Amino acid sequence: MESHAAVIGAGVIGSAWAARFALHGIDVKVSDPNPDAIRIIDEVLGNARAAWADLELPLADEGTISVVESIEEAAVGAGHVQESAPENPAVKIPILEAIAAACPADTVIASSTSGIKPSDLQPSIANPGRVVVGHPYNPVYLLPLVEVVGGGLTHDAAIYRAMATYAEISMKPVHVRVEIDAFIGDRLLEAVWREALWLVNDGVATTEEIDDVIRYGFGLRWAQMGLFETYRIAGGEGGMAHFIRQFGPCLEWPWTKLTDVPELTEELVQTIANQSDAQSGHHDLRDLERIRDTNVAAILKALEANDWGAGRTLRDQRMRLG
Amino acid sequence: MESHAAVIGAGVIGSAWAARFALHGIDVKVSDPNPDAIRIIDEVLGNARAAWADLELPLADEGTISVVESIEEAAVGAGHVQESAPENPAVKIPILEAIAAACPADTVIASSTSGIKPSDLQPSIANPGRVVVGHPYNPVYLLPLVEVVGGGLTHDAAIYRAMATYAEISMKPVHVRVEIDAFIGDRLLEAVWREALWLVNDGVATTEEIDDVIRYGFGLRWAQMGLFETYRIAGGEGGMAHFIRQFGPCLEWPWTKLTDVPELTEELVQTIANQSDAQSGHHDLRDLERIRDTNVAAILKALEANDWGAGRTLRDQRMRLG
Repeated sequence: MESHAAVIGAGVIGSAWAARFALHGIDVKVSDPNPDAIRIIDEVLGNARAAWADLELPLADEGTISVVESIEEAAVGAGHVQESAPENPAVKIPILEAIAAACPADTVIASSTSGIKPSDLQPSIANPGRVVVGHPYNPVYLLPLVEVVGGGLTHDAAIYRAMATYAEISMKPVHVRVEIDAFIGDRLLEAVWREALWLVNDGVATTEEIDDVIRYGFGLRWAQMGLFETYRIAGGEGGMAHFIRQFGPCLEWPWTKLTDVPELTEELVQTIANQSDAQSGHHDLRDLERIRDTNVAAILKALEANDWGAGRTLRDQRMRLG
Repeated sequence: MESHAAVIGAGVIGSAWAARFALHGIDVKVSDPNPDAIRIIDEVLGNARAAWADLELPLADEGTISVVESIEEAAVGAGHVQESAPENPAVKIPILEAIAAACPADTVIASSTSGIKPSDLQPSIANPGRVVVGHPYNPVYLLPLVEVVGGGLTHDAAIYRAMATYAEISMKPVHVRVEIDAFIGDRLLEAVWREALWLVNDGVATTEEIDDVIRYGFGLRWAQMGLFETYRIAGGEGGMAHFIRQFGPCLEWPWTKLTDVPELTEELVQTIANQSDAQSGHHDLRDLERIRDTNVAAILKALEANDWGAGRTLRDQRMRLG
């Protein structure tokens, strides 16, 4: 990217976008009304640099991150704008309008929303054809995935330009071709989350027991193959069609709490918070972030050595920077 | 374990149990009416030995695996019996009865069922107090998790003895304290599977796109932390209660297909099979198994170096064998 990236909203997600751009040598202008923004950016940039070292990536000429006074100041002349404001259309839309008024008419404006359809964000935006969703996963400086979604008014060119920008900062863009609420990843995550809340609510398992089932079991599969490729193997010589015919009918058994969501009573919230304290409270938040990042970096390097999946994204990143 | 392990049913799961016992120096007697059983055991044992080499584990005196003529012959004198017959109570119950009639009265009889409650299996079994579920995850010779579940008639001592046996073969037993269909892991997996089927059925995403969203995104988190510990970090300084209060209400949005399951028409089965072929058909089944195993082994070693999660189980395994 020839010009700077604008990052609007500098919470955990926005700050990590800023770090990801800067570590790829791209200057960043950030706008956020929160007086804590500079502190959060510094902390997240520190985490991102540590992850960079864990990944043994060569240091590029790091881009500068400047916190500016207004959305307009950040957006003027930007080559890409990434909006990461709170998850509420009433907050996001005026911000997107201000961005669109200030930046070049063909600059892609991407929202980090994790669930709002771009069609619900873009109608009032000047030149709405350049509005897309670019939904990342936390920690953004480390996980390669970004879901790219267009709305009814989005031009194909904006989709491709957003994907090119994300590839330039060593991400794996997946184009969500059909516009639905929550896209692909959060659909899957929400299904798991709902079921997990039931398990805690019904006293079947604690947060730690559920996490252990994930990280000692299928989580180890999903870091490298997803659901379908894993089940293709499980189908054995009969293949995928055999697997589905055999496994599919189980879905009709009354296993999961299909029709409703546990009420988030104060009691359930406290139960989860207390169980989470018992599970993880001996690490402070900074420790947990470092443990997570060190582990994810080690997994990425292991997959790179095997030339597979997200390890290939890391290899490409090394070549790009080297 | 002083005496041999009996493995009843030698498909992919039973054979992998046999391999896991044998690689820990425990002799195994296997019973399976399938004439292909010996071939399947050989193939799975070959995979398990290769995984052992990938993990750089010291070679113990490998136990012998003998395929015997009957359930009785396998079960007589066994120190632990692992049943891995087809997933149907009408098939499993007579097998469990035959096992119970032949093995010592206090030998734990564990079923590998992935969803049937032990209470539905044990009433007609002699000495039903020793019947438990020990539900593993594929590939059993590599993934540490085993869910241990007791039924209404199960004695606590049988639960603890099963957990001790699994720990002896370097697994991570998680006691599912409340008996529910599908236990913990398959509840979560079924929720994801159902949602993924909808995404394919509705033409939102292909099997490959869904898998990419998993393995370039949250799958990398779940190999090392589960759902709740990850979200604890996402909650930031507000902590877990803050995260739930913020994220919880999203569940009430009409995101997922809550109330039903896509009909598994021949057309949907073929769509999935064809997409899976396009995604993975350039690898044959043996290749895919080796890729999966090499990747999982590399992830386990990476976590071992970080002294975390499933890597600690591997470290313990190395100490046990060394």
